[in-house]
Amino acid sequence: MAHHQHRHRRRDQKIQNLPQVIVLLPPGCFKFLESGYSHKFHFLKAWESQLPLDQFLSSHAGSVQAMLSSANGPLISAQILRMLPSLRLIVTTSAGLDHVDLLECRRRGIAIANARSVFSEDVADMAVGLLIDVLRKISVGDRYVRRGLWATNGDYPTLGTQLGGKRVGIVGLGSIGLEVAKRLEGFGCIISYNSRKQKTFTPYPFYSDVHELAANSDALVICCELNEQTQHMINKSVMLALGEKGVIVNVGRGAIIDEKEMVHCLIHRDIGGAGLDVFENEPHVPQELFTLDNVVLSPHAATNTLGSTMALYELVVANFDAFFSNKPLPSLVVNN
Amino acid sequence: MAHHQHRHRRRDQKIQNLPQVIVLLPPGCFKFLESGYSHKFHFLKAWESQLPLDQFLSSHAGSVQAMLSSANGPLISAQILRMLPSLRLIVTTSAGLDHVDLLECRRRGIAIANARSVFSEDVADMAVGLLIDVLRKISVGDRYVRRGLWATNGDYPTLGTQLGGKRVGIVGLGSIGLEVAKRLEGFGCIISYNSRKQKTFTPYPFYSDVHELAANSDALVICCELNEQTQHMINKSVMLALGEKGVIVNVGRGAIIDEKEMVHCLIHRDIGGAGLDVFENEPHVPQELFTLDNVVLSPHAATNTLGSTMALYELVVANFDAFFSNKPLPSLVVNN
Repeated sequence: MAHHQHRHRRRDQKIQNLPQVIVLLPPGCFKFLESGYSHKFHFLKAWESQLPLDQFLSSHAGSVQAMLSSANGPLISAQILRMLPSLRLIVTTSAGLDHVDLLECRRRGIAIANARSVFSEDVADMAVGLLIDVLRKISVGDRYVRRGLWATNGDYPTLGTQLGGKRVGIVGLGSIGLEVAKRLEGFGCIISYNSRKQKTFTPYPFYSDVHELAANSDALVICCELNEQTQHMINKSVMLALGEKGVIVNVGRGAIIDEKEMVHCLIHRDIGGAGLDVFENEPHVPQELFTLDNVVLSPHAATNTLGSTMALYELVVANFDAFFSNKPLPSLVVNN
Repeated sequence: MAHHQHRHRRRDQKIQNLPQVIVLLPPGCFKFLESGYSHKFHFLKAWESQLPLDQFLSSHAGSVQAMLSSANGPLISAQILRMLPSLRLIVTTSAGLDHVDLLECRRRGIAIANARSVFSEDVADMAVGLLIDVLRKISVGDRYVRRGLWATNGDYPTLGTQLGGKRVGIVGLGSIGLEVAKRLEGFGCIISYNSRKQKTFTPYPFYSDVHELAANSDALVICCELNEQTQHMINKSVMLALGEKGVIVNVGRGAIIDEKEMVHCLIHRDIGGAGLDVFENEPHVPQELFTLDNVVLSPHAATNTLGSTMALYELVVANFDAFFSNKPLPSLVVNN
């Protein structure tokens, strides 16, 4: 018994000596990271603590230099950052940084590393999958069959829409948008795009105005990041320009679309349909969408594959390793 | 009143003088054909007749030279053909001819025209959509959200599978198979194929044995036609070779797979999943599949788009036009 306690104490001391990484809420598949790397890092898990968050933060204020965050965790606000004065690094499991107060990080000299483009191909696959699903009614057909309606009511009554020849407007031609374009070319879609600046490396037609892009597209695929400029960029006017046969796919962030207006447009068929992996108030999805057959709803799953989860956690660990040994961060996005 | 009757009689006589086309069961979206071309052809609609089928056929035996058929209509058997001795042409709305007794047609000098490759791109789109859906769990995610489980139970518990780098074996490299291959290359899939003969026009690796193809693939996409050689070609042994992570997509015909064995393999996870647009006994789908989350079920909808329906009926009409004016048939497949 005494021997046992001794062993426990030794193990605990060993953990105490590992570099600390604070985590407020576990990112998806945190178990992969924990089981693989608990011998290298001491994960301070706020959600497992008995303490309220502010006390938990205070108790580690003097020592913790590194944080792991994710898009589905809490906002890393100025208030939280003030309570961790020793913090020098945030590694986030997302590509987007909209859940971190970037100004405060810069002010405090906190570096940020992200998921880089680990997810780009998976997100593009999901975007194309959602577009095919909405146009060709795959999920709705699956429900029709599972409810036994094919045998009793005959063929599904509504025709789908061809992908070939459709004009697809990509909003945000970064690494995800480019992967979407590459895939859709194989389906005979005609690509154009909107982004902050025209890209020099691509011949796709550029629209500086997203409204104009919508007016000239049969479908919009939202792949841009969420920031002050893009919040509610897809507003009612853009949706009306897209028109009653137009389809929206969103694999960016929910708040890029004015969700309330989109729900209204979908119900009243001002737009044709939507394939949505992201929502304004996740995990809450507007219930009016649950009964619509012109939408496909996905639980922010565009990055959820085993392959990219493994690749992501390798990158996360590489960043922590580099930080704790004073080497350059592999996926640094905001310098300290 | 008398004037009215006179007009009706004149209209009826006019219809009687149009070239006759017999239809046993209406193909999908027959209304497009009827509303667009009833001024050119007199459609003899067996399913609207009060007479039993054999009497209906006998009543037109002497005159009817042309038939419209479809894959979801009744088998055009030797028995039916014997009752229509004047028949010289069958135009079918499908690419496949497995619903027509070809030997009896040849014996009787009946030509057959089909849908050619009107549908190839739509079917390929559906095949890729089903593959993405199964691997990335789109339909199951949609159900998860619609049931309100995301908000109550948190993120969907199972990770999907990446498309990139997956070895996809295409069974039947005809016009559909080639379109599937073209699309999947954009996703970074590695293509190989099985067919009756090696194709000289493609560098994709060829497997003469479908079992060997399965053993070297992460997914099989079935795009071949149904005939005596391909019936139940995807048997238990092929599925076990594909393995517990392997996925089957079928946009060919249901009976190419041994459906009973496939259901068993899916339930016992001897294979990873399936995306099925076709079934052995349509519209009946094995009910054991209705509760599985590793399958996506589609009601033989791979060709159901407005675009290809319009293109199809233009082709159908072009064939009847050519036949009744003794010109070469645009999509002749079996010579008379």
